[in-house]
Amino acid sequence: MPEPQTSPQVSPALFFDTINSYQRTEALKAAINLDLFSAIGSGHATTIELAEACGAAERGVRILSDFLTIMGFLTKQDGRYALTPDSAMFLDRRSPAYMGGTIEFLLSPMLTGGFKDLTSAVRKGGTVMDQEGTITPDHPVWVSFARAMAPMMALPAQLMAELVDPSANGKLRILDIAAGHGLYGIAFAKRNPQAEITALDWPNVLQVAKENAQAAGVAERYETRPGSAFDVDYGSGYDLVLLTNFLHHFDPPTCEVLLKKVHQALVPGGRAVTLEFVPNEDRISPPQVAAFSMMMLSSTPSGDAYTFPELDSMCRNAGFARNEFHQLPPSLQQVVISHK
Amino acid sequence: MPEPQTSPQVSPALFFDTINSYQRTEALKAAINLDLFSAIGSGHATTIELAEACGAAERGVRILSDFLTIMGFLTKQDGRYALTPDSAMFLDRRSPAYMGGTIEFLLSPMLTGGFKDLTSAVRKGGTVMDQEGTITPDHPVWVSFARAMAPMMALPAQLMAELVDPSANGKLRILDIAAGHGLYGIAFAKRNPQAEITALDWPNVLQVAKENAQAAGVAERYETRPGSAFDVDYGSGYDLVLLTNFLHHFDPPTCEVLLKKVHQALVPGGRAVTLEFVPNEDRISPPQVAAFSMMMLSSTPSGDAYTFPELDSMCRNAGFARNEFHQLPPSLQQVVISHK
Repeated sequence: MPEPQTSPQVSPALFFDTINSYQRTEALKAAINLDLFSAIGSGHATTIELAEACGAAERGVRILSDFLTIMGFLTKQDGRYALTPDSAMFLDRRSPAYMGGTIEFLLSPMLTGGFKDLTSAVRKGGTVMDQEGTITPDHPVWVSFARAMAPMMALPAQLMAELVDPSANGKLRILDIAAGHGLYGIAFAKRNPQAEITALDWPNVLQVAKENAQAAGVAERYETRPGSAFDVDYGSGYDLVLLTNFLHHFDPPTCEVLLKKVHQALVPGGRAVTLEFVPNEDRISPPQVAAFSMMMLSSTPSGDAYTFPELDSMCRNAGFARNEFHQLPPSLQQVVISHK
Repeated sequence: MPEPQTSPQVSPALFFDTINSYQRTEALKAAINLDLFSAIGSGHATTIELAEACGAAERGVRILSDFLTIMGFLTKQDGRYALTPDSAMFLDRRSPAYMGGTIEFLLSPMLTGGFKDLTSAVRKGGTVMDQEGTITPDHPVWVSFARAMAPMMALPAQLMAELVDPSANGKLRILDIAAGHGLYGIAFAKRNPQAEITALDWPNVLQVAKENAQAAGVAERYETRPGSAFDVDYGSGYDLVLLTNFLHHFDPPTCEVLLKKVHQALVPGGRAVTLEFVPNEDRISPPQVAAFSMMMLSSTPSGDAYTFPELDSMCRNAGFARNEFHQLPPSLQQVVISHK
C-alpha cells in the first residue's frame, strides 16, 4: 500500500539559522582565542575546570561550550565536555595539524570587511572596499595569508608535487607566481633534488617564503623576484610555472594577459600548473568549492571561481595546446595542467 | 558477513564552514535588502532578469543567487532560479508570512554588537556592551523589536491564548509585562470579549503595542502602564500575568524578585504564564532552543535560557504552588503556567 502523500511542512528554521550564522563564527573565534579546545584536550572537562584553565567566567565557558557542542565541535556527557576527532586534530594547539592560526587570515578585516556592505557589492558587481580590495599592490593581507595559512598548505602542496612531478628525478626549473608562503614550490624542491625554484610575490611576502625555504633545507635552490606578477620580468626557460590560488582574483581578459606571459616564460613542452577552486558548470557544486565565488565578489573588483571550461578557454586563448583537469583529494581544490 | 570497520575520516570542513558562517548572514541580509526573493517569486528567473529587477550588477546577482542556492534558499535549474517553499512563504515580500523585516531587530547593532568581542564576554561571563546591554532602561532595541518581530508573533500568541484560555468566555483581567508589540495580550483580547489587558513596557515601546491593539479592534479594553517591570506598581486583581520572553534577561535571584511581585498582583487561583526558550536539562537540546543562551551571554549581564527545573524552582521560591510545562508547536518556544 503506498504511503499517503504529506505536503512538506514549511518552516522558518533555515532563515533563523542563517541570519544568526554570524554567531557561529564569533563563538568559534572566541574558543580559539581562549584556547578552550586545548584545555579540553589536556583533560579539563567540567565548566569549573575549564573556567580556571582558560581564565574565564564559569558562566561564559558553560554557555560557549554548550554552543560549541550544538555546532558539533564538542561532545557533552553528564556535564563533561570532550573533543570530537576533528577538533582534536585541528583545534588542539598541541596537534601538528592545528589550524586555529588561520583565523588571523580568514577573519582579518581585509577579508571580513568585504562583507560589511555586501548589498552594495552585489549592486556594483565587485568589492566596495578601498582601491581594488585584496588585489591592491602590496596589500598587507598577503603577509597575513602567508604566515597564517602555511600549516594548511603542506598537504595539498605535497599532493600537487606528486601529481605533476611523479618521478622527481629530473632537472626542473620552476617559477612560483604569487608564491605566498612558498610551500607549493618548496614541495617540489623537497621531493626533487634537481628542482630549482624562482618565487615571485610582494617583497614583504617573499620574506615568509624565504624563511620557509630555509626551514625546508632548500634555500640554496630558492631565489626570489619581488614585485607584481603583471609587471616583473619572469626570465625564461622554465619547465613549470605554478599559479596557485591566483587567477581567481582577476577577470578572464586579465587572466589571459597573465597566461600569455606565463606561456612565453616556459620551455617548449613546459607546463603551467593552476591550483584553484573549480566549481562544476552548474556553479553550485561542490558546495564548498562553488561558495568561494562569494569571497571573490566581496573582496575583488572582478575575480571569480572559474569552471574548467572557462579556465580551458583562457589557457587556449593564451596559446596553451591542451589542458588537463585533476582533483586533489582530500583537498577541496582542483588542478589544471596546461601544456605549451 | 560483517562490513569492514572503517575509521572515520577527520576533516577540517566543519571548521571552515563555521569560520566563514558570517558570510551566510551577510548574503541573506543582502538578498533581503535587494528584495531578490520577491523578484524571483514574481517570475524573474535568470541573472539578466534579476539584475534588472533588483537594480544590481549581473555578476553580483549571479554570485549571490548561487550562494543562496548552495545554502538552500533557492533552486537552480538550467541557469534559472526559483524559490523553495520556505523562501516563498517567508522571504517573498508579497507573502503574508514575510519575515524579512525581522532583520531590523535580529541584525540590529544592539544585538550583533554583543558578538564583536565575544572572547571578552566569555571571560567576564556577561555582556561587554555599554551599561547593561539590552536591559539598559529605555534601550531603543525594544522599539525595533516591537516593530520588527510582531509579524512573527501572531501565531505563537494565538497558540498561547488557546492553551491558557480555551473557553474564551469568562471575565479575564490580564497584565502583560514587557508587552513589546503587545501581540500576546492582544491575542487573548481578540478571542475573549471579556478579556481586559494592562500592558507594561517602556513608554516608546507601548506606542507600538497601542497601535497594534487599535488595529486588532481591542483598544477599548487595552490600557498601558509605562516604566520598568521592577519599579512600576502593577495594581492587583489580575487573573493572568504574561511574562513572554522576559525572564531570560535576568539572573535567578532577580527573576524571583519579579515573580514575587507578579504573585502578589494575581487573584487567588490566578496564573502567571511564562513564554521562554526552555532547553532540556542537558542544555544542548533542542539545538535551536539551547543555542539561545549564547544571545543572553553576549547581550545581557547575567541572563540565560533556563531549564524547566530552574524555572520551577524560581516560581516556587516566589510563592507559586505548582508549575506546568507545555510545548507550543510549531513554535520553537515553551510555556510554563504557574498557579498561585
